[in-house]
Amino acid sequence: MNPSTSALLTDLYELTMAQAYLQQGMEEPAVFEFFVRKLPAHRNFLVAAGLEQVLDFLSQLHLSEQELTWLEQSGRFNPALLRYLQTLRFTGDVEAMPEGTIFFPHEPILRIVAPLPLAQLVETRVMNLLNFQTMIASKAARSVLVAGGKPLIDFGLRRAHGAEAGLLAARASYLAGFAGTATVLAGMEFGIPIYGTMAHSFVQAHTDEARSFEHFAQAQPDNVVLLIDTYDTEAAARKVVTLAPALKAKGIPVKGVRLDSGDLADHARKVRRILDEGSLSQTQIIASGNLDEYRLQALSESGAPIDSFAVGTAMTTSADAPSLDCAYKLQEYAGRPCRKRSEGKATWPGRKQVYRHYDQDARCEYDVVTTIDDRDEGTPLLHPVMKGGRRLNPAPPLTELRQLAATQLAQLPHQLRVLETAPAYEVRISSTLQTLAQTVDRGV
Amino acid sequence: MNPSTSALLTDLYELTMAQAYLQQGMEEPAVFEFFVRKLPAHRNFLVAAGLEQVLDFLSQLHLSEQELTWLEQSGRFNPALLRYLQTLRFTGDVEAMPEGTIFFPHEPILRIVAPLPLAQLVETRVMNLLNFQTMIASKAARSVLVAGGKPLIDFGLRRAHGAEAGLLAARASYLAGFAGTATVLAGMEFGIPIYGTMAHSFVQAHTDEARSFEHFAQAQPDNVVLLIDTYDTEAAARKVVTLAPALKAKGIPVKGVRLDSGDLADHARKVRRILDEGSLSQTQIIASGNLDEYRLQALSESGAPIDSFAVGTAMTTSADAPSLDCAYKLQEYAGRPCRKRSEGKATWPGRKQVYRHYDQDARCEYDVVTTIDDRDEGTPLLHPVMKGGRRLNPAPPLTELRQLAATQLAQLPHQLRVLETAPAYEVRISSTLQTLAQTVDRGV
Repeated sequence: MNPSTSALLTDLYELTMAQAYLQQGMEEPAVFEFFVRKLPAHRNFLVAAGLEQVLDFLSQLHLSEQELTWLEQSGRFNPALLRYLQTLRFTGDVEAMPEGTIFFPHEPILRIVAPLPLAQLVETRVMNLLNFQTMIASKAARSVLVAGGKPLIDFGLRRAHGAEAGLLAARASYLAGFAGTATVLAGMEFGIPIYGTMAHSFVQAHTDEARSFEHFAQAQPDNVVLLIDTYDTEAAARKVVTLAPALKAKGIPVKGVRLDSGDLADHARKVRRILDEGSLSQTQIIASGNLDEYRLQALSESGAPIDSFAVGTAMTTSADAPSLDCAYKLQEYAGRPCRKRSEGKATWPGRKQVYRHYDQDARCEYDVVTTIDDRDEGTPLLHPVMKGGRRLNPAPPLTELRQLAATQLAQLPHQLRVLETAPAYEVRISSTLQTLAQTVDRGV
Repeated sequence: MNPSTSALLTDLYELTMAQAYLQQGMEEPAVFEFFVRKLPAHRNFLVAAGLEQVLDFLSQLHLSEQELTWLEQSGRFNPALLRYLQTLRFTGDVEAMPEGTIFFPHEPILRIVAPLPLAQLVETRVMNLLNFQTMIASKAARSVLVAGGKPLIDFGLRRAHGAEAGLLAARASYLAGFAGTATVLAGMEFGIPIYGTMAHSFVQAHTDEARSFEHFAQAQPDNVVLLIDTYDTEAAARKVVTLAPALKAKGIPVKGVRLDSGDLADHARKVRRILDEGSLSQTQIIASGNLDEYRLQALSESGAPIDSFAVGTAMTTSADAPSLDCAYKLQEYAGRPCRKRSEGKATWPGRKQVYRHYDQDARCEYDVVTTIDDRDEGTPLLHPVMKGGRRLNPAPPLTELRQLAATQLAQLPHQLRVLETAPAYEVRISSTLQTLAQTVDRGV
């Protein structure tokens, strides 16, 4: 069983509600939109991600024989729902912001229009996919902004929340500007560049640290990156210097050394000096170990001679904001706009479009959220991507989405490009939309 | 492609190191242990979980044709490694603490003994599985401790980090004492009781809230739990009271109402009064909406008339501690104990056993970590579970593991059963183990 593709990876109430909708003949078109209610602490913007996986999920939506049998045997559902699920396919329309688009609270990044039971049934997984990758891409982008162009590598798989989280965190961070990942499967699945060095266990398995370096170099002559903090970092750097001439004679360059503990800036300076004095000025220094965007910024500002960074757990788990306050809400049913008014959770009704306005330097100035048939001078951000259950275009290459994200990050206003919380970017709710909300409220 | 079962869901360096080990003929038995270095903030203990998934992973370990072809075409690996991977199977031994066991820092909860390249290759996924479920079970147990016996339901799938995280969070929280989950697939895969109510969209899809309640009740007569906060909570409660007699006449009881926003304690009191005065004293109140163990404790202490709680995002993401400072470290190779001495990351060498000592009330008093061949009066916590790649026993039923966790929680010292950080539980490192560490240090 592959949880990533099972239609039963959903909340029970989606099935229960579908049964009730079918019983009442409520199969008119429903419009659901996915949006974020408010930014997490420490975030000034979000980067949309996860759309490809949503479209895959929708394209492949069906129940297996085993799943149908299990549902039937559970005794919870009536024959009408079971018959409906037997031939379940996604037949709806989807509009969305392309992955890599920067967005802000109250801006829908995805709209699904489908018969009510169908649009309802896909809720849980659509949220699960968009919440995760958007959160990771948004976190990763912060590291990209402060790394000063130095390559960043995702090292987070071991502490990612399960298999799919590890794989998709590699994707989302690459989309946001990381140079690659250590996760091999992300290379195979998404064509993301993969990187790797060696572990402490490799050194420990040898009785002699220098011998372990030698063995590693012989096995990977094109990619000799040696981990030098197992016992004594500077002593190990000197061992690398001693070893290098013999390797060089065999045509094996020492590409880099990795620091993984202690005061990274201090070790980097000392190691740089040892390497330089040992004629290894071409050997790079890679730093890892509990890095996040704050440490990256501090290391960057300290001028520490580090050439690239491996970022793990903090990014892969979005440790300081491990979820988004996001929602997938019914905005219209059978042509009637609707909204939720629960305390602190009110939503804007109807089908909406987001328009972005730029200043004279081509930087984002403000956005307008309005009804879909309203007019605005700005650039519309939502575009049709699926019609009647069929994708309108093939999946764009991930590199293209990564380029879009880079362009969008370059268009961010200066005041949002910092790690500290900045004054909120302006998102205007149009008077048309406000009027619609009032009309809806009077109607209930 | 199912990321949950792919052998390439691993860090590149595991493959690189395996290639070097093979090249050097380093295929002697290696001993790796998984442990947590220190407790996250806000945790007084951890609950071991994830072993079943690790044993599944090890039992099924192999590379598909597609994976082998991709590795070969990548041009990164030598023929010896590719041949080795072609017939890769797990042939090692595993000892572990049973899932549900409470444990503390520096105590290994799992040991793998296998030829070095093999024991190395499985590192990433073993860590990925144990880190996640242990983290979730440990977080969920805190809610169980403060909920005063009221049922807790996992509602977290939509903001879980991907598919597997949602599925396994349902498992880990049930193991720790939750009553069930909303995740349907967790019912099918693990036999976990599933629960569900209705969403705001169901109410909004109707033009009339009372009609939506009626429709829902007709579709699910055995499980009528109505969400009453879409517009005005108390007004909705009165609608439920008005509707109830007609439903009762049809033999449909209103089993419960759900509150999902606002001041839950205040709404619960008002709604309870409305229900009681409306002859619905049997109708239960279920609360949800950004709950975690702190809010559960506050609601519990306030005496709010809430019968059960749905806990979502905070538990599923372990929001206040979204990772564990865990490690899978080489402790012995070819009969030679070894250890890492990196700053702040030193480990205890050799194969170890953990012994638990109980006081006269059968509560945990202290633990002893010592070498495997040392003697101790306490109860040993690690047991053999796999030998030569074969499980020694069939997978225990999840209910049995859940019972073990409940017993273990009951044995927790009083001072550790609180949400605040308590003085650390005593974990003694035996003099034998300390002597071994000194011997190893002198040897390098």
